[in-house]
Amino acid sequence: MTSQLVDTEVAELAERAVGGDQRAIGRMISLVENGGSQVRQVAAVLPAPDRPARVIGLTGSPGVGKSTTTTALVSGYRKEGQRVAVLAVDPSSPFTGGAILGDRVRMQEHATDPDVFIRSMSSRGHLGGLAAATPQVVRVLESCGFDVILIETVGVGQAEVEIAGLADTTLVLLAPGMGDGIQAVKAGILEVADVFVINKSDRDGADATYRDIRSMMALITRDPNEWRQPIVKTIAHRGEGIADVIAAVDKHRDWLAEHGELERRRRDRAKAEVTAIVLGVLAKRFAVTEDIAARVAEGEIDPYGAAEDVLSR
Amino acid sequence: MTSQLVDTEVAELAERAVGGDQRAIGRMISLVENGGSQVRQVAAVLPAPDRPARVIGLTGSPGVGKSTTTTALVSGYRKEGQRVAVLAVDPSSPFTGGAILGDRVRMQEHATDPDVFIRSMSSRGHLGGLAAATPQVVRVLESCGFDVILIETVGVGQAEVEIAGLADTTLVLLAPGMGDGIQAVKAGILEVADVFVINKSDRDGADATYRDIRSMMALITRDPNEWRQPIVKTIAHRGEGIADVIAAVDKHRDWLAEHGELERRRRDRAKAEVTAIVLGVLAKRFAVTEDIAARVAEGEIDPYGAAEDVLSR
Repeated sequence: MTSQLVDTEVAELAERAVGGDQRAIGRMISLVENGGSQVRQVAAVLPAPDRPARVIGLTGSPGVGKSTTTTALVSGYRKEGQRVAVLAVDPSSPFTGGAILGDRVRMQEHATDPDVFIRSMSSRGHLGGLAAATPQVVRVLESCGFDVILIETVGVGQAEVEIAGLADTTLVLLAPGMGDGIQAVKAGILEVADVFVINKSDRDGADATYRDIRSMMALITRDPNEWRQPIVKTIAHRGEGIADVIAAVDKHRDWLAEHGELERRRRDRAKAEVTAIVLGVLAKRFAVTEDIAARVAEGEIDPYGAAEDVLSR
Repeated sequence: MTSQLVDTEVAELAERAVGGDQRAIGRMISLVENGGSQVRQVAAVLPAPDRPARVIGLTGSPGVGKSTTTTALVSGYRKEGQRVAVLAVDPSSPFTGGAILGDRVRMQEHATDPDVFIRSMSSRGHLGGLAAATPQVVRVLESCGFDVILIETVGVGQAEVEIAGLADTTLVLLAPGMGDGIQAVKAGILEVADVFVINKSDRDGADATYRDIRSMMALITRDPNEWRQPIVKTIAHRGEGIADVIAAVDKHRDWLAEHGELERRRRDRAKAEVTAIVLGVLAKRFAVTEDIAARVAEGEIDPYGAAEDVLSR
């Protein structure tokens, strides 16, 4: 590790965070999110985790019951004595450090549990965006000794799929009757899913949703040695099926470990993290000026010529 | 423009495309999407458009009725004699040149109209991703003389918000009862919206959705000189309210023109386009190696140290 001056305050903060002080953990994460000069110090002072956490991604369209499922999963893991952290990632929100109204209110049954840490994140401010910030926050939480880290994203777009894909195991949530099944189960989401969860499975259309997933899976040519995604039905607000989800996650983790995939996923996560930091720096260094943008807009130069100009600086 | 050899075939293709040949237009777009060496030739051979098209972004969660609204808008603009192109952008789909099943089937009433061009796009393959490809495709369509270019995205994530934001006017679609109103009307979407459309407004909850938007708008401090987003109610499958949407778009465009915002948006679009190309090139040039990723994953080096290594090459 490159030597550098470490701010004593950051070191003290890290010590308290690792000791389980929730406010200190929150402040460490803020340092990472803000992306200022102290980010490097945070990376430097964090101890290596005793053991890797299980990082679980959870994604799905609005309305499928992500928050409810997350809450139920937290309860399930808490029963097993695991320390759980929840990151609610919202790439479209300009707010940080807390969702507008939603997640905290809904998760209030865990709000006073010292072994549950809940945090909302958005994309603003961080050099390299959420793709860089999320793995770093995971690193903080892992060093602070959390056993399970749940990353919840609103999952339809590319960014969310990428973030969900940073997890060891990614759960894709669906619910019956959420608009067009074909629209909801996009191929990109299919690719990122390790476990499908059909929530609200007591509703009409749950079987149709099940069939939709099956037929979508059949469209993707799969290597027979690949992991075959299970489909778990839940009614999250009653806690039904949650134990099955946890069992499916365990099974997937065993499969990952057996196939050397756990290391590969962690390497991919590190790669995404470093790439995002690199591109964040480069985007500043090779900024496109207003003048060049105006000339492209006017049709004076084509965008490739403009890009060459920028790159030759 | 920098001088370069122009492939005669590309020049001929451009001529046919500008003449209205739909297959030629499709092939031009494929060249742009594939992002190969011919992209620059396409940029070079395209004539300047006779007049700028009106570029309209349309976004919203799955199930709000985006395709139906797009179809209704196409009908509306066709009645006015406008030539219309539709780009259905799906950042999460690995398929390109056509949605899996959806859009084309649904828009079949316009499939035989020579003055309607419909195209699906995904993010794979293009250097710089959709943020680079979309403005270039818009450029092709503008040169081919389309009066209206509708860009439809599944809008929840950052990428979609950005793409929608590239339009002159962005419509944000909502529908009553689509999960939690607060979740649907995220602040990021609010910021990008020029016109709100409440589709399926005959359903229960339309008034609640209206109030949700109003109260979210009140949360954002706005300059009194800024555009105040109208809220239009529609029942797209019956064509109800579509004329009001078109009127709102026209009004917004007049406002943009009066305030010099039309040029600013086009400059922003050009900037995003060039930035995406630049970053695409740089991402290749400063690729993070497997070795560095492994060392970060193992905790041997921190991600910032790794980024410095990569950047110092």
